[in-house]
Order: sequence, then C-alpha cells, then structure tokens
Amino acid sequence: MTPTQPIVSDAKRAARIGMDIGGSKIAAVSLDEDARIEAEATLPVAMGAAGVLDTAAGLVAELAERTGRAPSDFASLGVGVPGQVQRPRGTVRHAYNLEIEEMELGELLSARTGIPVSVDNDVTAASIGAAHLMGLDGTIAYLNLGTGLAAGIIIDGRARRGANGVAGEIGHLPIDPLGRPCNCGQVGCLETVAGGMALRNHWPAGGADPGRRLLRAVEAGDDDARRAFDLLVSGTARAIRVLGLTIDPDTVVIGGGLRLLGAPLIDGIRRTLETWEAETSFFAQLGMSRRLHVLPEGSPAAAVGAALASRA
Amino acid sequence: MTPTQPIVSDAKRAARIGMDIGGSKIAAVSLDEDARIEAEATLPVAMGAAGVLDTAAGLVAELAERTGRAPSDFASLGVGVPGQVQRPRGTVRHAYNLEIEEMELGELLSARTGIPVSVDNDVTAASIGAAHLMGLDGTIAYLNLGTGLAAGIIIDGRARRGANGVAGEIGHLPIDPLGRPCNCGQVGCLETVAGGMALRNHWPAGGADPGRRLLRAVEAGDDDARRAFDLLVSGTARAIRVLGLTIDPDTVVIGGGLRLLGAPLIDGIRRTLETWEAETSFFAQLGMSRRLHVLPEGSPAAAVGAALASRA
Repeated sequence: MTPTQPIVSDAKRAARIGMDIGGSKIAAVSLDEDARIEAEATLPVAMGAAGVLDTAAGLVAELAERTGRAPSDFASLGVGVPGQVQRPRGTVRHAYNLEIEEMELGELLSARTGIPVSVDNDVTAASIGAAHLMGLDGTIAYLNLGTGLAAGIIIDGRARRGANGVAGEIGHLPIDPLGRPCNCGQVGCLETVAGGMALRNHWPAGGADPGRRLLRAVEAGDDDARRAFDLLVSGTARAIRVLGLTIDPDTVVIGGGLRLLGAPLIDGIRRTLETWEAETSFFAQLGMSRRLHVLPEGSPAAAVGAALASRA
Repeated sequence: MTPTQPIVSDAKRAARIGMDIGGSKIAAVSLDEDARIEAEATLPVAMGAAGVLDTAAGLVAELAERTGRAPSDFASLGVGVPGQVQRPRGTVRHAYNLEIEEMELGELLSARTGIPVSVDNDVTAASIGAAHLMGLDGTIAYLNLGTGLAAGIIIDGRARRGANGVAGEIGHLPIDPLGRPCNCGQVGCLETVAGGMALRNHWPAGGADPGRRLLRAVEAGDDDARRAFDLLVSGTARAIRVLGLTIDPDTVVIGGGLRLLGAPLIDGIRRTLETWEAETSFFAQLGMSRRLHVLPEGSPAAAVGAALASRA
C-alpha cells in the first residue's frame, strides 16, 4: 500500500513543532492546538549528525521558552529534510549538504527532545504547509525551484509520497538527449535546465548564488544571463506541463528559493503556458496558466507542513 | 475539489451492468451483488447517437435475459467511452470513431433503459476494472496502448480523474521537438511514437491493423517494422518513467490492444527500464521494471470498471 497522511494529523488537537532543516539553517515553528503559528525561531545549522541534533534541540528549547510551554507539552515534532527519507522511522540518507551519509534522525531526535518525531522530505512538507497557509484544497502540485527541481503532490487533501517516496521527483525526468549530464547519472534531466544548480551551470558568471544577480544582468543585456533565465522559464513550464498531464491539479504552487525572482519568472512561465494553450485546445483545457500560484516570501511552509504531518 | 470515486461504488450491494463502447463493438458485463461477473455479451456498435443507444439497449435486454433478471433489477449501468467525458452528467464530446460530435449519453441512455447511468472515460474505467480483476491495491498506473496512449490512475484504491478529467493523458506530453505533428496540435507527443496510430504512421506497410503483422515482419528482418517496434518499446518505457517519477505507483498495468504483442513487447519494455535502472541508482529505486503487469487477454476490464464506478 502507498503511505498517505492527512494534511492535518488526526492525532488529538495539541501543540506541535515543525522544523525545516536546510543546508545553512533550521527554521522552526510552533503551532497551537488550532494549527496556527504561535512562534517561530531560526538557528544556523551545525554540520553532521551531532550538529543537527544540537541545533534542533536548541530550537525546541527556544520555542518552549517563547510559548511558555514545557517541551513535553508539544505532542509531536515534525522535521522536513532534503534528500531521501525512509518513513516512518525517519532514516535520512545522502544529505550531503548537512555532511550526513546516513542518520537515524527520527529516533535520535526523539531520544534527545523527548518528543515523538516524524521525518518527511522537505518538499512534501512544504506542499502540506503551503496548502494550509494558502488555504488551498483539492489537488495541488507544489513545484519547488530550489537547488534542484521537485514537486510535492497533494491529492484531495492528502500528501502522496508514492510507493518508494519518489512521487513528484520530476526533476529527474530526462527531456533532452543532447543535454547536460545530471548528478543522478542520467542526461538532460529537467533539473539540468531548471533550478538553482542549472542556473549556476548555465550562467557561471553569476557565482554561487546567481538568483539575486540574474534579473539585473538580464536587464543589462547579458546574453548568457538571458539564456539561463529563458531555460529556467521554459524548463519550469515543462515541469508544470508534466504535472498537468499526469495529475491534472486544481492548483500549481511555485515555491523554493528561485520563486523570489518574482514577477519576471512567474510571468514568463505563464506566457509560455499560454503559448502552448493557444497551440492546442487539448492543453488549453487544462488551464494551467490560470492555476499558477506563488508561495509568498517568508512563508515557513516546510516547517508548518512538517508540524502538520507529524504524529504523536 | 477534484472528483473522485471509490473503486466499488458505495451504493447498496446490487447487480450492475457495465459497458465498454469501442469504435467497432460494445462489450457488456453484468456483475452480481458481490461484484462478480455473472454474464457477458458483445454486439457490433451501430454508428451515431441513435446507433449507440440501440446497441446499448439491446445489450441490457440480452444481459437481463441471460441472468434471469428484469432490467429494473440492475441498480446502475456504467459506460466507458473513448474521448472526453463530462461527469457526472455523462456528456460525450468528439467521439469521432462513433460518429458523435456531442451527445448527452448519460441522460439519453438512462431514459432509454430505465437504469441510472454513469459515464466514464474508457481508460479510467479499464484501470478500475483491471485493479479489481487482477486483485491489485494501492497506487496503480494503467497504461493503455490503444490507438493512442493514455493512463488511468488509481491512488490508494480511488480512480483520480484530475481537476479537468485530463489526469493520465500523458500521450500528449511532447518529448521530441523534431518529432511528428500530433492530432492534438502539438509536435512530437509520446502518442506520436507509442500506440496504434504511431505504429501505422511509422510502418505504413503494416496496413490499418499493423499489430498482428508487426512481430512477423520484425522476425522476417523488415527494418521499417523493427524501427516502428523499437519506437513503440522505447516510447512506452518513457511513458512508464513519467508515471514513475510523478506518482510512483505500486504497479503499472499495460493494457490496450497492443498489449497482445505479448512477451516481445513487454520484455522489450522491461529491458529498457532495466537499462535505465543500471544507469542511475535514482531510477533503480523506483524498481519500475519489477512493477510491470499485463492485463490478461480477453479481460473485460473497461466494462467491469464502468460497472464498478457506476452509481444508482
């Protein structure tokens, strides 16, 4: 059977903590009994298994202090991490940006904090949090434009992780046999044209964090920047087309760091979808260009989603 | 909200009829109170709206006679048709192989037979029937290799039609910008390389029904036949990869007329998937090559699924 989980845990109403473990920081939230954010805290993450545990434990203490609760008052702690997660045990593998090869994150963090811990993929967690915070229901494809490209899929209000936890990993769909090699071992994956890593590869002049500089360079007439931006736009539109023709979602939410490219990115994606809609009535039916939403800046979607998906 | 439907209707246990309306015949089944096939009947379909109604009404009479029931003993009648279906009313559009531009099939057939009628897309109906007849649960992608190429998607036991009834229409995913024009208005869709229509286009020497001749021609060393067969194999494997990376199903079932190419087709698809699995551990995780099943020959999956999805 495919593992599924309701957006809001069916555990009894209780305060919960959620954390989004990224490569540079851990963002944490505390949700009250009605699933409203009551406190937020962020700490730079220390590397390795011990570093992650220390940072997470520090955040539990901080949230407890800010909310006036004892750590034992939190019914559960949900954690979103990049990379492969084995549920329900919470084994994390190949989280290289945290310098972790393999870690029993769920077990160790639960032993450390005394709170039952659930671990989820960060994109899945963000899709659950985005649906909750943006008040979306039905079927949602949350497309994360981060370092890579992946989607979290919610069907009729439930996160769907698939038989192997690989549902939504469309970044590794090969689209160009003449394209660049992908980290995954294939060639020309969607992720090699759309996402932060692709942007760095296609526009090396932008440095390690090209997102912020990209729009200025495009405006200044930098042809390489323009090409990298166009690839990002068309690759993201292609990813949305894949999601449309497989799950036909009510809503597509664009999330991830690159969404902060804002209107130029989103308008470009929408125009690409509109062009395809004009070309074929088949694609027009899907109305994808009208189903696009963007996760608001500063939204702690992954932390909130991890909390919502956590179970006591 | 996305329309959904349980595999077995939650209507009270009752006998039901299901029909699979194809371009040349209508196949019908009667299911008993325990959803077991109690009778089957098939008639050549007469063209146009009146022809379809006459044929369907004739089949209801025949099934009633064979089962010793009055038509009014059947709680519901489910119909699977190719093309776009507007649920729940059962408006059918663009069913050109039946010479129907638009027809209120649900309403008219219900008025004609006195039985509540539900209309569904035939591929969705076949996915529901295949899951039932093959005893599959969890998440299933039913890949129909018919004239075109489309998938029926069942997630955790429920057929998912998507927000616009377009879920699973991966045949219209463009994969080759240098490919052939597709009927849908796009270029190089999956359906232009995999499916019966593609086979006719790539191997015109095979005539109108090339499937039966194809394997003999390949064995006889016909290079054009070999190329068309290889395209069918690789295109189908690509379709399975798309389904794997979006919904990550427990099982992929190959259905549709071309499945009757049998072991050479299925082994070819499995070998292609195994090659990809050897190339990338990422794809290997999905284990798609081990999740392949084939709908048995002669299985009335679409008729059974239409009956199961019908509601009183």
